[in-house]
Amino acid sequence: METFAERQISRKVKIAYIGGGSRGWAWGLMRDLALCDTMRGEVFLYDIDHAAAKDNEAIGNSIGRDHPDRAGFLYRASETIEEALDGADFVVISILPGTFDEMESDVHAPEEFGIYQSVGDTTGLGGLMRALRALPMFFHFGEKIRECCPGAYVINYTNPMALCVGALYKAFPAIRAFGCCHEVFGTQEFLCNIVCEMLGIPRPNRGEIAVNVLGVNHFTWITEAHYGSVDLFPVYREYCLKHAETGDRIADETPWRDNPFASCERIKMDLFLRFGYIAAAGDRHLAEFCPNAWYLRDPGTADGWCIALTPVSWRKRDLEFRLNMRDRLIRGEEKIELFSTGEEGVRQMTALLGGDGLITNVNLPNTGQIPNLPLGTVVETNAVFTSAGVVPVFAGSIPEPIKPLIDRSADLQPLILEAAWRKDLSLAFEAFVCEQQNNLSLTDSEKLFRKMVHNTKNYLEMYKDLERFDVPIADQ
Amino acid sequence: METFAERQISRKVKIAYIGGGSRGWAWGLMRDLALCDTMRGEVFLYDIDHAAAKDNEAIGNSIGRDHPDRAGFLYRASETIEEALDGADFVVISILPGTFDEMESDVHAPEEFGIYQSVGDTTGLGGLMRALRALPMFFHFGEKIRECCPGAYVINYTNPMALCVGALYKAFPAIRAFGCCHEVFGTQEFLCNIVCEMLGIPRPNRGEIAVNVLGVNHFTWITEAHYGSVDLFPVYREYCLKHAETGDRIADETPWRDNPFASCERIKMDLFLRFGYIAAAGDRHLAEFCPNAWYLRDPGTADGWCIALTPVSWRKRDLEFRLNMRDRLIRGEEKIELFSTGEEGVRQMTALLGGDGLITNVNLPNTGQIPNLPLGTVVETNAVFTSAGVVPVFAGSIPEPIKPLIDRSADLQPLILEAAWRKDLSLAFEAFVCEQQNNLSLTDSEKLFRKMVHNTKNYLEMYKDLERFDVPIADQ
Amino acid sequence: METFAERQISRKVKIAYIGGGSRGWAWGLMRDLALCDTMRGEVFLYDIDHAAAKDNEAIGNSIGRDHPDRAGFLYRASETIEEALDGADFVVISILPGTFDEMESDVHAPEEFGIYQSVGDTTGLGGLMRALRALPMFFHFGEKIRECCPGAYVINYTNPMALCVGALYKAFPAIRAFGCCHEVFGTQEFLCNIVCEMLGIPRPNRGEIAVNVLGVNHFTWITEAHYGSVDLFPVYREYCLKHAETGDRIADETPWRDNPFASCERIKMDLFLRFGYIAAAGDRHLAEFCPNAWYLRDPGTADGWCIALTPVSWRKRDLEFRLNMRDRLIRGEEKIELFSTGEEGVRQMTALLGGDGLITNVNLPNTGQIPNLPLGTVVETNAVFTSAGVVPVFAGSIPEPIKPLIDRSADLQPLILEAAWRKDLSLAFEAFVCEQQNNLSLTDSEKLFRKMVHNTKNYLEMYKDLERFDVPIADQ
Amino acid sequence: METFAERQISRKVKIAYIGGGSRGWAWGLMRDLALCDTMRGEVFLYDIDHAAAKDNEAIGNSIGRDHPDRAGFLYRASETIEEALDGADFVVISILPGTFDEMESDVHAPEEFGIYQSVGDTTGLGGLMRALRALPMFFHFGEKIRECCPGAYVINYTNPMALCVGALYKAFPAIRAFGCCHEVFGTQEFLCNIVCEMLGIPRPNRGEIAVNVLGVNHFTWITEAHYGSVDLFPVYREYCLKHAETGDRIADETPWRDNPFASCERIKMDLFLRFGYIAAAGDRHLAEFCPNAWYLRDPGTADGWCIALTPVSWRKRDLEFRLNMRDRLIRGEEKIELFSTGEEGVRQMTALLGGDGLITNVNLPNTGQIPNLPLGTVVETNAVFTSAGVVPVFAGSIPEPIKPLIDRSADLQPLILEAAWRKDLSLAFEAFVCEQQNNLSLTDSEKLFRKMVHNTKNYLEMYKDLERFDVPIADQ
Repeated sequence: METFAERQISRKVKIAYIGGGSRGWAWGLMRDLALCDTMRGEVFLYDIDHAAAKDNEAIGNSIGRDHPDRAGFLYRASETIEEALDGADFVVISILPGTFDEMESDVHAPEEFGIYQSVGDTTGLGGLMRALRALPMFFHFGEKIRECCPGAYVINYTNPMALCVGALYKAFPAIRAFGCCHEVFGTQEFLCNIVCEMLGIPRPNRGEIAVNVLGVNHFTWITEAHYGSVDLFPVYREYCLKHAETGDRIADETPWRDNPFASCERIKMDLFLRFGYIAAAGDRHLAEFCPNAWYLRDPGTADGWCIALTPVSWRKRDLEFRLNMRDRLIRGEEKIELFSTGEEGVRQMTALLGGDGLITNVNLPNTGQIPNLPLGTVVETNAVFTSAGVVPVFAGSIPEPIKPLIDRSADLQPLILEAAWRKDLSLAFEAFVCEQQNNLSLTDSEKLFRKMVHNTKNYLEMYKDLERFDVPIADQ
Repeated sequence: METFAERQISRKVKIAYIGGGSRGWAWGLMRDLALCDTMRGEVFLYDIDHAAAKDNEAIGNSIGRDHPDRAGFLYRASETIEEALDGADFVVISILPGTFDEMESDVHAPEEFGIYQSVGDTTGLGGLMRALRALPMFFHFGEKIRECCPGAYVINYTNPMALCVGALYKAFPAIRAFGCCHEVFGTQEFLCNIVCEMLGIPRPNRGEIAVNVLGVNHFTWITEAHYGSVDLFPVYREYCLKHAETGDRIADETPWRDNPFASCERIKMDLFLRFGYIAAAGDRHLAEFCPNAWYLRDPGTADGWCIALTPVSWRKRDLEFRLNMRDRLIRGEEKIELFSTGEEGVRQMTALLGGDGLITNVNLPNTGQIPNLPLGTVVETNAVFTSAGVVPVFAGSIPEPIKPLIDRSADLQPLILEAAWRKDLSLAFEAFVCEQQNNLSLTDSEKLFRKMVHNTKNYLEMYKDLERFDVPIADQ
Repeated sequence: METFAERQISRKVKIAYIGGGSRGWAWGLMRDLALCDTMRGEVFLYDIDHAAAKDNEAIGNSIGRDHPDRAGFLYRASETIEEALDGADFVVISILPGTFDEMESDVHAPEEFGIYQSVGDTTGLGGLMRALRALPMFFHFGEKIRECCPGAYVINYTNPMALCVGALYKAFPAIRAFGCCHEVFGTQEFLCNIVCEMLGIPRPNRGEIAVNVLGVNHFTWITEAHYGSVDLFPVYREYCLKHAETGDRIADETPWRDNPFASCERIKMDLFLRFGYIAAAGDRHLAEFCPNAWYLRDPGTADGWCIALTPVSWRKRDLEFRLNMRDRLIRGEEKIELFSTGEEGVRQMTALLGGDGLITNVNLPNTGQIPNLPLGTVVETNAVFTSAGVVPVFAGSIPEPIKPLIDRSADLQPLILEAAWRKDLSLAFEAFVCEQQNNLSLTDSEKLFRKMVHNTKNYLEMYKDLERFDVPIADQ
Repeated sequence: METFAERQISRKVKIAYIGGGSRGWAWGLMRDLALCDTMRGEVFLYDIDHAAAKDNEAIGNSIGRDHPDRAGFLYRASETIEEALDGADFVVISILPGTFDEMESDVHAPEEFGIYQSVGDTTGLGGLMRALRALPMFFHFGEKIRECCPGAYVINYTNPMALCVGALYKAFPAIRAFGCCHEVFGTQEFLCNIVCEMLGIPRPNRGEIAVNVLGVNHFTWITEAHYGSVDLFPVYREYCLKHAETGDRIADETPWRDNPFASCERIKMDLFLRFGYIAAAGDRHLAEFCPNAWYLRDPGTADGWCIALTPVSWRKRDLEFRLNMRDRLIRGEEKIELFSTGEEGVRQMTALLGGDGLITNVNLPNTGQIPNLPLGTVVETNAVFTSAGVVPVFAGSIPEPIKPLIDRSADLQPLILEAAWRKDLSLAFEAFVCEQQNNLSLTDSEKLFRKMVHNTKNYLEMYKDLERFDVPIADQ
């Protein structure tokens, strides 16, 4: 007979999935939920593309059919967001703000002006334009959550992470939302490799590397790293001195030029040797938070640092591949394989329900965890998950050498949020000229901004001054 | 063959124990160390009473003889504090500032003026006088730790807890010190009883009750409490409404009048019904942090609330008992029984060495974990222990209803610290008249202060104005 | 021809006077306005006692008749608060919350329980009960100001000052309100006397004494005082050492026992010699912010410190006197004499309109001017008045020795505000038991609270739990 | 007979002038002191060029000879800094860190890499290199002031202003130092012109324009501006809409191309129209705090915005001119003309001695006057000067649109200070690559840094890693 605690922990939960038609994150969550022994219930899939949600309902429910002992969750596509959210215990948000056509503009339009981006979804000009599309949606989600399930925990996976989480809190200040990202995990894995190589011992697990993390999403930094009682900073320095020039070859067996998400950690190591702290995100993300003359001056520079400028055409091809997989899954020609994704969403949920406590890095508004960033800025630090809630740990002040770099991104948060809140592209343009990767003259900045607005105007209709900017500068 | 991690975690550690002649805490630590599988090494016992340290060396080493499979630690009495501290990984401090004769003055001298204390070692007039003796010692410990083992983790168990921890940081701001106290555990146990009674399920373990804790030592409050997904606040309210008048009978089978440390939780429940938050320390401590008209107006009032005014004579008799036990232990007539104490010191050490992470409540200077207390005040909140260090979690602001009560104690911290730092009894007297339990006229306050100074002057010789106060007021 | 600046500064202003039927403050303001050369306009008098406002309309307009060269302001009684406020440049608030019958309960009801108050309108049990009546009115004023004149400067003179100002900001966070009090001026005058006596020079003017002020209203402290380049702290100390025992005889020629507002500054000097800073309010106010065993244990104690326990019967007689004066003023048997009141309201207005800048002490929410008090607490410090607005100066942290005393009052602000905001007497009672002058048992506290609620219930009808408390404790 | 206050205010003061050989600021101070009626005393001139100090001694004392009624101050050249500082009431610091040869490198060396600077002494690469020379001197001054005159008020005029003031506080945290700059005055004068033109009234005086100021030196912003009760923001907007394209023609009759310090306020107006706040420094300074693609991409861009790139050759010629004047002054061929400089140093001194209070903008470490900048950053806001000291007013948070720009400079303060404190060029290089005007690749950055270090190495000998950087990158 199950104990009270077991019953509590394994009680039937309701999960609302916004963006529930996703062909990626959604399937990962399904796998992790199927593997979870301490929770069962229903997942309500909501998507503006309702057909996609229906597809995922079918795929999700196929797991229980194929693995009867893993049938803890039932999937249901919801026609309305209200139905999905009503009384939910957890809300998961993973959406694409717009389509890959808009993302194509975000990433590639600036190239005509000599500005290259390796990802284009978080910071820089691409991240800003994506935010202008995403934030109105997140204000809406926040308001709906306040109405339908104000006590729910809300897990966001959508980029630009910090701004999306900020938008939820702006719309509903009492929301229990946080943002999750696996980039720090990757750096912990890299540290595991290094421990193995440099100390000559079997490779430890990620969980054995204790770190203090601080910064903003995709530009987080590790200021303490220990393996057992070994301080990893001198070990990491030694590794960097050995490998910084040529790049790491352990992390990834695939030649990086064949993998638009790969890197050789050269930027990470260069930043460490310059500034003394361990940047904890993929090199493609890190590059975008630095002055673009450093790692992204032109495609050749990026190539020299061993990172790809991930083209959106690749993402489009990849989507084709995933749509094919969807068809095979629905037709039963292929089955969801049950292996853990390595993501922590499900572990967070069970911890919040009273299972084992968890310490992990998440994105939350600053309430003092980083004393030298303004209160309210959405920052990434470690936090503790227990049934008493999610509370950030004190991560300490950002060290002086990296504060200027972090601020260049963190500083724009309130301005971009305010621009979206007021539906004011003119204010957004104030942020656009201040984006550190924007090294254009004021005139060229305006030309580019108008072009990017024009390219994505289908998703900017709520902005009150859209007409003013949706016109080439020459024709004013 | 042990893994690298095992080797790291189980590496030979050096623990310095200041107050190593203790007949209580020291034996408990010996037991917990003996039961620990992931750490071994040496414990250096330092005590101003060197003979007592030698006794404990013998007792400590008897464990290994009696339990050869539990012989991980060797005990050595040190003649000097430097020898004990030199290169230590951990420093444990548990001392008695002065003797029970001085404590007799702390607790009982105010009774002549109608002021009753149930403990007298933390706050109030007794706590203040004890601090005047203890803090100069802690300044010294801090300086020695800076000299001999600046990177060591320092665990303090001595009262007055907050002030002793504050003194370590004042003497050596980069110290890695924290204070540990088990009072919150007791309240968690009380909550386990309540869960059992009110929900009709088997009694859970303390670790299954997730709480958010904030306040100052011995006057900590729980602002969130969950068992699994059950919010325990309504459950606790129901329990209090049922039991507040008569007192809890679950916690302790011994009639409270026979046990000078027992209580019936009536004060705890009364505070909850008045202020809406769960006070998390023993009732005898809680009473001293409230206006004395509430629970300590006179012995009858205390009795009415079911708490004892623990007499120091009892402590003296108890010491006799423990000295007898020491003799028997040394003569081998009795053996240290190996059961866990329930204290967390050893679990904290192993977590800091890279073992399982630990979330528990400790005393640390406020760096923002409680935003509405001044930075630097030593506060008690949850913290995370990993090999990356001890970091407090964000506990949130003290709720409005209990802020006035907490401040009355927290506010005096800097003043008392400064008085001890400057060796200035005149400044200490400024704190003395402001102690909330001091309801005397200014003249009577001064009479009592002089008396308490006189009674304990052997331990106040470093104060520059001792002569001014060590004289009855009439004879000035 | 007047310059543009003159025109701007002397432009026609609209002043709304809430409590415009007042027989005291209103006449003072009329005098100061009449003497002002740089401003003219209209004063709209609003009062719940409309007849009183009509009387003051007559009295105000008599000034212009009697002194044709001083006819800059026209007075009009308004039937509605909206009419008075609509488009106002300045709002002045000076009301009596309730009548002197309610104040009689505030001041004298606690005496039956042995609690004596010297004023009873700011802090302590009397101040709390007065706040419970006043705050709902101030929430209303704040809301009406938001509707009718959101950009107006609002000057409050009503006690309890800090709470009334806090209520305005709670109701309308963007309000430009501040509270004015002349108690610090009195201490500056006292310092002028001391400069004169101790330095043997002609008595300087108050404006020549530069001070740094901090604290809460009626418990403000001077932490720097200079006359020219003379640091006045050693001078003040010398004076106190000479006069603390016997009391100051310079300040007031009237024997203090004949004047219920007088004192001999003995408490002020005693506090200085104890704590090292200059308390800057009248002794009758200061006494109420200290533990009552110090200066208010019983009438004899107060008498020994040379302060009166101002009886409300005196206030009632004084009102009779002022009503007679009103009759004479209206009948023209007496005329308003035009001499300056020494209040600063009119100078503040002209400074805000672009006249000479002014540095003076006012009550404002803490935005950091006192770093070791919580943000939002209404505090009193110096501020700068110019046409760019009212901005507090950085007053520094409250010194350690006086922080505990100031906090005992400041800490209760949010709790009392919240109780009034939620209309919750039960929450107010939480504050009541924590008032530092309340040295009663919990049972007696409740008896007294119920009595005081009962006595003043006509003004507490909006409280949702009035019925629960408006009944003697025995009859529950 | 003079009153006590007059005696106090006019008491004999000792002023120490560090950089007392200056041929510019020193003569200005002499004029203002000669015109001051309320202060007299001695000025001790200290300079590492003692002959220059002797020259100024002669020139200073010539004033008293030529204007016997203006002989309030005696001038003395001091051989040692200790003699100058000993017991001083005021310390004035105005030095040139290095010579114009070093400044030539600061300003012009980056031009080879395509980086143009309009001033080069505050921020950007030139400001950074200048700081590396200046800060070790300021640490020394701070230490000497602690030794010789710890209570003196210290007025700094040297650039880089914020860093030099920061260095004084780093060396001696209790110093009473502040930095003065007249750039805000210039913008207030500009506002006077605008008031005159747009409102059609006689030109007001600068003192009649009330402003709220915040930011860092040379990049200060006005967030409130009033003339009488007129809000100047809409007036300024109207003016900018009219003149932004063509530039202001009122401010300066001299064609700007003939005056290397002139501008047409086009940048100031452009910034207002973009960001909504009034930048309050000369356009040449403002340009350097913005991304260099905006106003300083190349000489043509600067010219298009009507600012000169002040060449150091001009400064050298100007020095020749001033040395000739010195010779004529010493030979008595020319006399110091007594007209007010418009600087506020002497008014500040008399205010601090107890004369009329003064509200003006100064540079001080942030203690909360700007809540969204870190504590300790040296910021510029209004402050109040009275005999009770210099206290900043609460200036409010930096508005969101301009926060990113201000942070790019403010963020580097702690890093540059630390680099100078530790004598660590390697740390300085971390700041160098983050300077926002540095748009070079990492390799070119290092080339340029080495070159600038090499050019100025005579003043960098105290840096521990000078050798590492004083070598071209190719020769490593």
